[in-house]
Amino acid sequence: MTSQAAPLTTGPVQVVGTGLLGTSIALCLSGQGVPVQLSDASPSALALARDMGAGEPVHDASPEPVVVVVATPPDVAGPVVLDMLRRHPAAVVTDVASVKAVIAAEVAAGADDGARARYVGSHPMAGRERSGAVAADADLFAGRPWVIAAHDGASAAATAAVRGLALDLGALPVPLAPQEHDDAVALVSHIPQLAASLVASRLVDAPEAALSLAGQGLRDVTRIAASDPRLWAAILAGNAGPVAAGLRELRADLDALIAGLDRAAAEGPLAPGAMGAVSAVVSAGNTGVGRVPGKHGGAPRRYATVQVLVPDEPGELGRLFGEVGEIGVNIEDLLLEHSAGARVGIAHLSVVPAAAAGLEQELTTRGWRVVAE
Amino acid sequence: MTSQAAPLTTGPVQVVGTGLLGTSIALCLSGQGVPVQLSDASPSALALARDMGAGEPVHDASPEPVVVVVATPPDVAGPVVLDMLRRHPAAVVTDVASVKAVIAAEVAAGADDGARARYVGSHPMAGRERSGAVAADADLFAGRPWVIAAHDGASAAATAAVRGLALDLGALPVPLAPQEHDDAVALVSHIPQLAASLVASRLVDAPEAALSLAGQGLRDVTRIAASDPRLWAAILAGNAGPVAAGLRELRADLDALIAGLDRAAAEGPLAPGAMGAVSAVVSAGNTGVGRVPGKHGGAPRRYATVQVLVPDEPGELGRLFGEVGEIGVNIEDLLLEHSAGARVGIAHLSVVPAAAAGLEQELTTRGWRVVAE
Repeated sequence: MTSQAAPLTTGPVQVVGTGLLGTSIALCLSGQGVPVQLSDASPSALALARDMGAGEPVHDASPEPVVVVVATPPDVAGPVVLDMLRRHPAAVVTDVASVKAVIAAEVAAGADDGARARYVGSHPMAGRERSGAVAADADLFAGRPWVIAAHDGASAAATAAVRGLALDLGALPVPLAPQEHDDAVALVSHIPQLAASLVASRLVDAPEAALSLAGQGLRDVTRIAASDPRLWAAILAGNAGPVAAGLRELRADLDALIAGLDRAAAEGPLAPGAMGAVSAVVSAGNTGVGRVPGKHGGAPRRYATVQVLVPDEPGELGRLFGEVGEIGVNIEDLLLEHSAGARVGIAHLSVVPAAAAGLEQELTTRGWRVVAE
Repeated sequence: MTSQAAPLTTGPVQVVGTGLLGTSIALCLSGQGVPVQLSDASPSALALARDMGAGEPVHDASPEPVVVVVATPPDVAGPVVLDMLRRHPAAVVTDVASVKAVIAAEVAAGADDGARARYVGSHPMAGRERSGAVAADADLFAGRPWVIAAHDGASAAATAAVRGLALDLGALPVPLAPQEHDDAVALVSHIPQLAASLVASRLVDAPEAALSLAGQGLRDVTRIAASDPRLWAAILAGNAGPVAAGLRELRADLDALIAGLDRAAAEGPLAPGAMGAVSAVVSAGNTGVGRVPGKHGGAPRRYATVQVLVPDEPGELGRLFGEVGEIGVNIEDLLLEHSAGARVGIAHLSVVPAAAAGLEQELTTRGWRVVAE
């Protein structure tokens, strides 16, 4: 349970598909007392979700659901949404598939305007490396963005219901048109996924000794390459245009890189322009990664950091804090770093950006050693 | 200090370049009582390393070093190694640059066989996101691979001295010929670096709303894109051939991906072969990432894991362990996972691979629910 207040969703909620996402949604709603009906094509997956406390399997006497959540694989989400709109003529229907425009188009083609108004696609930006009900977690969505991708014909009431569901699950609703969503996930999810797979593919025939040199960088870049090929083929089938466009841009940069490296290999590193391509790509990467929000989804940096060397002696840290107070600057956050074997530690003082330069100057005047980040 | 035993390196050791690697080496050796001489082109970088306790700046009366460690930027490592071989005619000289064949070639071209025999290049596979002495840590190399890249003309004594230095620093020496090293780091370091930069480059002009959807996958893939463009241009200048060869292979896969996605966009996802390219790349990525050693640098998996659902009731876990013991299987490692909101936990039992299938069968017979990974 991620919310203390009464849930906005009264239920019953029917969850179609008891994989990772469906079971996590069901667990969280059940934990808040919302009646949850479960269905899944696989009886064993359904039994597992029920045993975990996610809800009860839907049956002929189940009451009509108020909200239906379609949590099937993305390539069947469209037909299942249409089926649910037909079967439950008063229910709001959403899906949690990772592509939105293609499903909105399937619903537009297969449902009349009245039924279509009850459909609002959505996409929780949450997942785990492991799949299936066994990996489900009622807190999976806590603090995560949840795209509410209402199409032009969606009713305000249906949109509000899906937004309320996301809030009940502890997520942060992000309204985006279906195509805006698909363009966005091409950049922040689908292209990174394929790049990770392309890098990992190079390791298939690598010598053992090469792999023994692997470090955290390689592990980070390739971690998501462990994803399910069938699932990803289905996801990308629904977003082929935007992904291909992004990959074309990437290929243009890659061609420039290869040309620069070829020149360096043939004529030496100082050949004109040889390494400019590398430097340009790495520089652009610096700019791009600087725009990625931090761990908690906020802006990458709200405070400026002033780093001060603190001798490893009793009372020195207290003296530093006292002097920062005298200078009149409030310490918003603090990180202490003590490197093994060093006689000094580093205090990372987070302060409002406007105060940073003055604080650095004043501390230097008072004899502290301020170090560059 | 990472070692309790007396260091193999008696010193004095001269460390040329007090950046992250040089200062970390110096801190660790100084902590073991080895005399360390420091030099750096930047007086302030040198003073910072000295203040951290890394050693004393080299001066005219400094005793002759037994080992010289060149820890300069990679594009000047070759000339500095040659200079050190000349200045210190009895010393073993190593460098810690991340390319090895080009430096070995520079030494072969600029030193006679006697001097050249005293040079053994090396490469510690360790780093941090932050650079400079301020980020130095005596434990930076603990448990990390350290390539000892002896060229054909290196003396056994020099090779042993550099290997001893790596051991003193707590690292794991990995002998590789210079070109083998360069081919390996192209795959496990240089190509992943460029791929991270290429993905992050796509974000430079992305809408804010797209970035707000970023998750851990994007953060992982792009983390190392924050690296220094100048440093990477220098590194890749020294390894242009192997990197370009790897990038060409990557581009061939990328071309197939784009062709498949174009077909899916034009003719629909079910067009013949449309999504086969995606599935092939993601599958190959699965195989590749499966070869990446785990966090502790060992084989990815020594044990098989059996996952058992355990009801969240007192005594159930004890009962499970008792029955596994009765079955006669030893639990090598154990991870307990309890998802928020679920009425059951999952026990991940690590057992020798040969015992896994029998244990699963026997536990199922006894009424436990064994779940697929």
